[in-house]
Order: sequence, then C-alpha cells, then structure tokens
Amino acid sequence: MRHFTNVNDLGDLKAALDEAFEIKKDRFKYVELGRNKTLLMIFFNSSLRTRLSTQKAAMNLGMNVIVLDVNQGAWKLETERGVIMDGDKTEHLLEAIPVMGCYCDIIGVRSFAQFQNKTDDYNEVIINQFIKYSGRPVFSMEAATRHPLQSFADLITIEEYKKKARPKVVMTWAPHPRALPQAVPNSFAEWMNATDYDFVITHPEGYELDPKFVGNAKVEYDQMKALEGADFVYAKNWSGYAGDNYGRVISKDRAWTVSAAHMAVTNNAYFMHCLPVRRNMIVTDDVIESPQSIVIPEAANREISAQVVLKRILEGLE
Amino acid sequence: MRHFTNVNDLGDLKAALDEAFEIKKDRFKYVELGRNKTLLMIFFNSSLRTRLSTQKAAMNLGMNVIVLDVNQGAWKLETERGVIMDGDKTEHLLEAIPVMGCYCDIIGVRSFAQFQNKTDDYNEVIINQFIKYSGRPVFSMEAATRHPLQSFADLITIEEYKKKARPKVVMTWAPHPRALPQAVPNSFAEWMNATDYDFVITHPEGYELDPKFVGNAKVEYDQMKALEGADFVYAKNWSGYAGDNYGRVISKDRAWTVSAAHMAVTNNAYFMHCLPVRRNMIVTDDVIESPQSIVIPEAANREISAQVVLKRILEGLE
Amino acid sequence: MRHFTNVNDLGDLKAALDEAFEIKKDRFKYVELGRNKTLLMIFFNSSLRTRLSTQKAAMNLGMNVIVLDVNQGAWKLETERGVIMDGDKTEHLLEAIPVMGCYCDIIGVRSFAQFQNKTDDYNEVIINQFIKYSGRPVFSMEAATRHPLQSFADLITIEEYKKKARPKVVMTWAPHPRALPQAVPNSFAEWMNATDYDFVITHPEGYELDPKFVGNAKVEYDQMKALEGADFVYAKNWSGYAGDNYGRVISKDRAWTVSAAHMAVTNNAYFMHCLPVRRNMIVTDDVIESPQSIVIPEAANREISAQVVLKRILEGLE
Repeated sequence: MRHFTNVNDLGDLKAALDEAFEIKKDRFKYVELGRNKTLLMIFFNSSLRTRLSTQKAAMNLGMNVIVLDVNQGAWKLETERGVIMDGDKTEHLLEAIPVMGCYCDIIGVRSFAQFQNKTDDYNEVIINQFIKYSGRPVFSMEAATRHPLQSFADLITIEEYKKKARPKVVMTWAPHPRALPQAVPNSFAEWMNATDYDFVITHPEGYELDPKFVGNAKVEYDQMKALEGADFVYAKNWSGYAGDNYGRVISKDRAWTVSAAHMAVTNNAYFMHCLPVRRNMIVTDDVIESPQSIVIPEAANREISAQVVLKRILEGLE
Repeated sequence: MRHFTNVNDLGDLKAALDEAFEIKKDRFKYVELGRNKTLLMIFFNSSLRTRLSTQKAAMNLGMNVIVLDVNQGAWKLETERGVIMDGDKTEHLLEAIPVMGCYCDIIGVRSFAQFQNKTDDYNEVIINQFIKYSGRPVFSMEAATRHPLQSFADLITIEEYKKKARPKVVMTWAPHPRALPQAVPNSFAEWMNATDYDFVITHPEGYELDPKFVGNAKVEYDQMKALEGADFVYAKNWSGYAGDNYGRVISKDRAWTVSAAHMAVTNNAYFMHCLPVRRNMIVTDDVIESPQSIVIPEAANREISAQVVLKRILEGLE
Repeated sequence: MRHFTNVNDLGDLKAALDEAFEIKKDRFKYVELGRNKTLLMIFFNSSLRTRLSTQKAAMNLGMNVIVLDVNQGAWKLETERGVIMDGDKTEHLLEAIPVMGCYCDIIGVRSFAQFQNKTDDYNEVIINQFIKYSGRPVFSMEAATRHPLQSFADLITIEEYKKKARPKVVMTWAPHPRALPQAVPNSFAEWMNATDYDFVITHPEGYELDPKFVGNAKVEYDQMKALEGADFVYAKNWSGYAGDNYGRVISKDRAWTVSAAHMAVTNNAYFMHCLPVRRNMIVTDDVIESPQSIVIPEAANREISAQVVLKRILEGLE
C-alpha cells in the first residue's frame, strides 16, 4: 500500500480485519519492521485520540516519530503560483511539502474542511498536495471529507461485538452547538457500504450527505423508525452539506439526542461514537455510561487501525 | 508499586534511597525494563524540570514517551454529570481519561491547585480521577497539594550532603510576587516527617500550612531563631492556606529573603530550593551562587527520583 | 569536537565533507554511537527545517531526543545579577541553563538576533551563556550571527553539484517585507571564505555586512555584473548591519528579485536558498521551479550536516 485516504486503499476488508486481529493479539510482533524508519505526523488541527493512537501504533512497529503541530494562525502556506509573497505567508507549499518529505519515510496529515470553499474541501486540496509533492507515502489522520482511520477502527469494533453475520447499523445525526465537518459520517458511510451490513442513515431534512458517500444506504428521516431493531447505533453530528447549507448548523433539535427511549426501540444495540462527544447533546449520560456503550473499546481500536495502515505502508516501502 | 502520589506509596524510605543510589551509579542498568512500554506525560500546567527529568528517566529505562500539553484555556474538560454540553467544553473527563489510558502503560499527570475551590484542591480531584478512570498506574508530576518527585529528589540530595546522621533541616517561607500553591512545602514537610531529621518550619504568621502536612515539625515564627544551627536551609514561597487566606499573598516582606546574614547563623548550612527561584526575592545572588548552594545537584536528582518511581511502577505491571 | 558554532569548529573542511558523503551513503552506519545519549533541542524561535532535520539526524545516530519549545513571550529569563526578580521573569539563566544541562548529553540552541542591542547580538550572548553554564557540548541551530548547520549543508550541496574545481558562487541580497537577521549571509560568507571558490557578494548600498564575515569576498554593487558567469546563485535577504541601519529594512527594490533575466547572464547557474523563501520577492516562480533550482536537495542536506556535527560531538564525549 502506498497512500491511505479512503476505504479502497485498503483493498479486501476481510484480509485487513484479519491483520487487525492478529496485531491486536501481539502489538509488538512487527517491532523490527519500522527500525530506522521515521513517521512525520503533521497536524493542521488539534487532536487527542489520533495523536496518541497513531504515535503508539508507530512505536509498536519500532518507528521513530516526529510530531509537527502547525499552528493554524502562525504558519500560513501560500498555495497560489504568481503571488508576490509580501504578506503574512512565509512559505509556499511547493517548497514546504517536499522539504517535509526529505526528513521522513511516511507522512500522516490532519487537515479539516475549512468551510470556505466547498470545491476545495471536497477535492481534498491539502492532502492531495502532500501526495503530489512530498515524495512520500501519505495517510489521512482526518482530511476534509474522510476520516478513514476512525472508520477502520469502527469496523474492527463492530466485527468484535456483532452477534449476527449481517447486523443492522444505524448512523444517526445528533445535535451539536458548532458546525462540524462531514468527514466522520462520510467516511463511516463509505466503509459501511463496503460491507454487507444492513446500513441505515437517519437525520433531519436538510442534513443530506454527499450522495457519493451515502451510496446504497437507506436514508430514513424518522429517527425512531430508523433505530427499530438496530444492532449498532452510531451517533454523530455534522453540519449541512447540500447547497447553501454547506458548513452551516441547520438544527439543534435535542429530540435527536440519543436517549434511553431511543435505545429502547433497538435490538439492545451497542452505542458508538468517535469521540469527543458532547454529553446530553449527542447522547445522554445514562446511554453513554450504560453497559451497551462501547465508545472506549472503539477508541482503543484506533491504535489497531493505525498500526495496520502503518504496517502495510512500511511493507510497501522500496 | 501501582500509583505514586505521596511518600507512603514508596514504602520503606531506606530501601528507596538505596535504589536511587544504585540507579545513579548506572542509569542504564534497567534499560530493558521499559522496552515496548509507553509513558504518557500529561501537563495541565507548564513545566521545565519535571518535563525534562521525567522524560530522561523514562528513556533511561528504555520506555517510549508521549508528551501531551493540555493548553489550560483551549482544552476544557467537563467534570459534572447531567450537564448539557453546549458550551466551550468539548469533552467529558469520563471519556477523555479512559481514552488516554488506552494508548499507554503508565500516566504521569501535572495539575496544580486552581485556588477556586479549596476542597477540590485538597481532595486532589483531578489526579484522583485519573487514578479512578484511566485503568493505568498514575504518578504525580506535581498535583494540587503535593510534589512527591521533588520531595524524593530533595531527600536524596540531603542524604548525599549530610554530615551527621540526624541533620537539622529548616524550611523557610520567603517572599514572591505571585500566589503559589502549597504543593512543594506540603510535600517536603510530609517527607521530612517520614525521616528522623530535626525538622523545623518557619514562616510569617498567617502562612500556617495544613496540620496534616506539618505533622510533628516544630513551627517557629522567628526566622533567625529557626535557622540557628541549621544544616540545610530549604527556602520556598507559598500562598496562604488557612481560612480566607487560601490562595492569597499575605506578605511580600523581603526581610524573609534568605541572605548571607541568615546563612551566618546556621551550621554552615547547604542552601536548597526546588527552582525556578526568584533571585533577591527568595534568596540573594550571593547565597545562591555560594559553594553551599546545592540547587543544581538537587535539580539533577529529579532524574533519579523519577527513575526509581518509574522502575517500581514498571516492575508492578502485570 | 566539543562545541559547534562556526566553521572553525569543524576543522579541515575536506575531511568534514568526506564524512558527510560517507554518512549520506548509509545514514544508519553509526546508529549505535548515540545509544543512551540524549539530545536536548531548545528553540527560542520557531523552526521547520532545523527542527525536523536535526531530530532526524539524531535518530539516525540512535540518540534519544527531547524538544523544548521556549515560547518567546511566556518564558522570560533574567540575565542580570542583582535584579530583584519581582516582575515577569520567573527564572534566572544562571539556574535554568545548568539545570537543562543536567538532563541531557548534548544541547542544540536556536536563538535569533533580537535587534535590541547590536553588541549583545554580535557577542552571541545567549549561545555563549549555554556554552559557559550548561556543562554540555552546545551546537548552534542558528544563533544571532551565524547559522553554521545551514552553511555546512550549502557547502555539501555545492560540492555535489559543481562542475569545475573552483566554481563562481554569488550571494545576492533580495527584497523581503520584514527585517531579517544577518545570520545566514554572515555564515555563508564565512564558509565560502574557508573554501577556494570564487566568491562574490552583491547587494544595494547600505546593506554591507560585518567585514569580519565578508573577509576576502569581492563585493559588487551591480547585481547583474556580479551574476555574470556565476555557477551558483545564492539568494538571501538580510536587514541592515552598519551603523543606524542595524536591523532595519532599507530597500524593498524588486529589481533585485532573482528572475530569468538575472539567471540568463550566469553560466547556467544553480539557484540556491536556505528556505523558507518568499516567492516573487526573493525569486520568481519560474526560477525556483526551474531544473536549475536545487533548493530541495539543499534542504535535504540539512540532515547530513547535522548528522556530521552530532557524530563528532558524540565521539568527543568522555
């Protein structure tokens, strides 16, 4: 594997899952694989889980790790050719990116949607420039439209907890005070579509996701109806995607907050969320603290998904 | 040893000191002990000595280290159940702490007293939540009421420099422009009470420490009288503890600044301070630069105290 | 080698270059040399290339690395004796520096000219205090008046690309919106003077560098004339050095921006710059993107120059 930005990069999911479970049994089995190899983790946005889990995964593989926090305000990259750089941008990406590639073997990039230009966001301008100009394998630590390390961890978690071959998985929108990117729900939908699960998406009208990601999922506007018989409830907020609603908060309706009443109509479903989660906005205290809440094991699997990805990229280095 | 937050966690001090001196002779003797083990250092407050010395100690033991700086302003954790999280706090500690525990083997936490709620500070709410929810061994890198890695290093230093079996050790308050926590003096008193030294505390009236920490120490309000015949002078500022004075600066009286005149009444005492030190507030230039000043060897012993603690926690991992 | 702050510390340049090319062939040949040795990198100023390349070089040698970012505003060191430290400076350098030396084997320091006191800048007050008080070998990661790791990388690059034994190397001033230190041009001049290259410096009147660094270089105020027949064009902005112009921007004349017209009079010269570079201020897009631009290989050699320096300091440790 060279780059990792979406589900297709991983190839056969069954093989990837087998690899994940093998690594989970012995995290240090491949500790020699990364010897004298350096991972550079570049954060344009803040991070807790991704920062820690990816660093841990790299160290499990014996890699050296360099973390570079790009302060959003302080370090502005010029992206246009022809500009006279006499303002506040001190470096052009056409120099900065290949330079970063000089000092490492693999690059991880976190760069969220900026909600300033939908086309740029959905064309993944930032991470694609790293792929084009760095000369190194690049993987997403959450890009503008996808968060594949999260989705892979979600898949691993569902495989660990599922009680039937083809569980019903319901991704439900839930309210949040701020406008969040669509990367997590897009990506989760993309990965669920790559399985044979019964996958349903529910959200208020106006919160339709990009059809490219919705794929064959059933979209149901009645949240309670969607949750009926669910084996897994995957809650997440996102801001509007379609038309003028792009990047906007359309609803803060707390009737959508996942509560015991919602869980009661499910098939004793497990509750999942990528974290961080706003309690009593996304989900009530009692649901997230219930035995059916698997948010912590889900987070723990972030180390495993990152390690499979890094292992495969390491194996692909010439 | 599972957790390390106070002197009692270390057990027999003689054995701990022997271990410290053994490690100081060969810091890399146990470099295999920490192989494939990860230390997560979490800083809610800034740090120089603790950051560097603990990281160095962990690397001496062959550990991997991840440092997480929690910007006090930016990363606000919700601590109450039942709150609708629609404000500026993006994550609840009930998720954040177990998640951090997922990606490491041992957690070090620095979290100072906040002077907003004395009961919360003296109940050590933050570090105790890490102990309760992280699922990992936790050690203090200075908590609200104690700084045990500093006190252990202080003890090692006194043992190295003392010229009699039972030296006279005087902890003296000294002025400072800002309100500082009581963690260092509390902790130093706690550790001195665990030895058979002749231990005296001196401070202006109003600066009485929590009796739990003062223990059997002699409290003497006359600084010069307290210093008479001292073998070690341990200077430190702290803010008020008792009643309405909690967290307040009551005096900036520079007559308490440790000077040559103060040192003249001692038994040619060694001068100690945990650093950073405000010169000519806490101590005069000539005293801290004199041959009797052992503040640098004292700081150097922070690596040793941290390494004993990490070694013991590593040995206690299942 | 004990310290590294200028070209003389490296001794015979031919031997140093041979060592650089040996390391470039196998970066991990000396991976055992740094075992259980710790590099402390201290940044008083921000850094991309130096941060990454020096960290990578240290890891190539098997060292442990601790990075300490000293926020310029937050962490103020008192430098004067006798001051009553009741203001915003929390620690005196006479304590801070030896303490930092306690927890490492080698110290790298980045500390730019502050343009507040020319004598202090040109006496290299900050890095010299580290040399005097840390008790450790110290190397410059760009100090007030020199950037020797950059100059050494520049020399390696010229040696790799030169087509004749004694190439003509022209360092040309170019415009920039802000006042930049003279460290890079000073240092480059110092290193070029240590070779037998034909070395020319060109800049507008008023931009004369310290004669100590200019040395035997030919200074030519007519940029086009200077560039005639050049084999290497080394562009760089700097602020005024002489008299009242110290630290000031005297000209932003974009006629000095290196363009295709400038390159046309050279001997098909290679274009070099230490980066980050302001496009269309220092150099036009077409020149920096041309096949003759070697700014990326030049940046890549920063890893090599740092590794030679660290290797030699490691070999010199008792």
